[in-house]
Amino acid sequence: MQNANPIDTLIELMARLPGLGPRSARRAVLYLIRKRGPLLAPLAKAMQAVADSARECLNCGNVGTSDICDICSNPARGTGLLCVVEDVADLWAMERARVFRGRYHVLGGTLSALDGVGPDELRIPQLKARLATESVTEVILALNATVDGLTTAHYIADALEGTVTLSSLAQGVPIGGELDYLDDGTITAALNARKPI
Amino acid sequence: MQNANPIDTLIELMARLPGLGPRSARRAVLYLIRKRGPLLAPLAKAMQAVADSARECLNCGNVGTSDICDICSNPARGTGLLCVVEDVADLWAMERARVFRGRYHVLGGTLSALDGVGPDELRIPQLKARLATESVTEVILALNATVDGLTTAHYIADALEGTVTLSSLAQGVPIGGELDYLDDGTITAALNARKPI
Repeated sequence: MQNANPIDTLIELMARLPGLGPRSARRAVLYLIRKRGPLLAPLAKAMQAVADSARECLNCGNVGTSDICDICSNPARGTGLLCVVEDVADLWAMERARVFRGRYHVLGGTLSALDGVGPDELRIPQLKARLATESVTEVILALNATVDGLTTAHYIADALEGTVTLSSLAQGVPIGGELDYLDDGTITAALNARKPI
Repeated sequence: MQNANPIDTLIELMARLPGLGPRSARRAVLYLIRKRGPLLAPLAKAMQAVADSARECLNCGNVGTSDICDICSNPARGTGLLCVVEDVADLWAMERARVFRGRYHVLGGTLSALDGVGPDELRIPQLKARLATESVTEVILALNATVDGLTTAHYIADALEGTVTLSSLAQGVPIGGELDYLDDGTITAALNARKPI
């Protein structure tokens, strides 16, 4: 890289983003330089705005631009349903489905003995505190269907047993899924949870 | 997307980068928000610095932070060799190889009848002007070995014939290349250009 400093610095920083390496960072920066009016300048401003204002919701762990996020501060979302997710990306995925109208609790990861992640590293104490103060009628465990996700769901279900109604997302054949492409575990789960028509 | 405005704006802008779509843009933005101290704030500043200072070299078309780029303004690079490349990414690739010590001329693309790109859309007039004013002893055509690149190289070779020594990059087996994985065209070119040992 022979160019002057700011361009090299930008390439080096862009290469640290997930999904980008040095090569795609160079490509992105060249593209940005070509579009410096319509794209680079607004992007720089948007990044600064997010750097200045982004924070985690003190209540649920969602990211937003205020101490209490839009969902937690929306009275219409106080339905008594609390959906527990692993991270903010999962919360956004739930929101894109536009089907859940309650509130969320973002754990910030999963329990992992290997990585030394225990209940206090996640937002499990905050979850218990919310159940004591908010009027929650049902906790929906919407953790990923991975080993770590299931372990964490089991732990939370044990910890909350008897205090609140608990549920988890159904497992089965995804919409549009073809049996031939599904793994054995999914087919087993779908068969075990089969429904009368 | 339910979040407040700056985060949505940032995701929308990031998704316009080459190689990123909406999904990877969301992932990158969540990562940036998590690392807003060590990464997002410096990245915003680097983008603003590049937006404020990046420009194309008036002489060769390279990008940099001054009207004449570091290579054109470096007297040590005035070797009489002029390497013609399609775009800045190719110039950077040549520089990474650290073997060429002359100057460059960035065309800004290739001739393309389909896309309506003629010689005047590229920096071919500027190339002729440089040959008239700079002491160039050899023009090396380092265009991509694609149909458009070869067409453009032929056009430039015709246009400059008799005014300066012309050469092009050698074609053959890439270093580390395995014959079994090479296309027929490369094997043909390598065989036709075979060298006595």
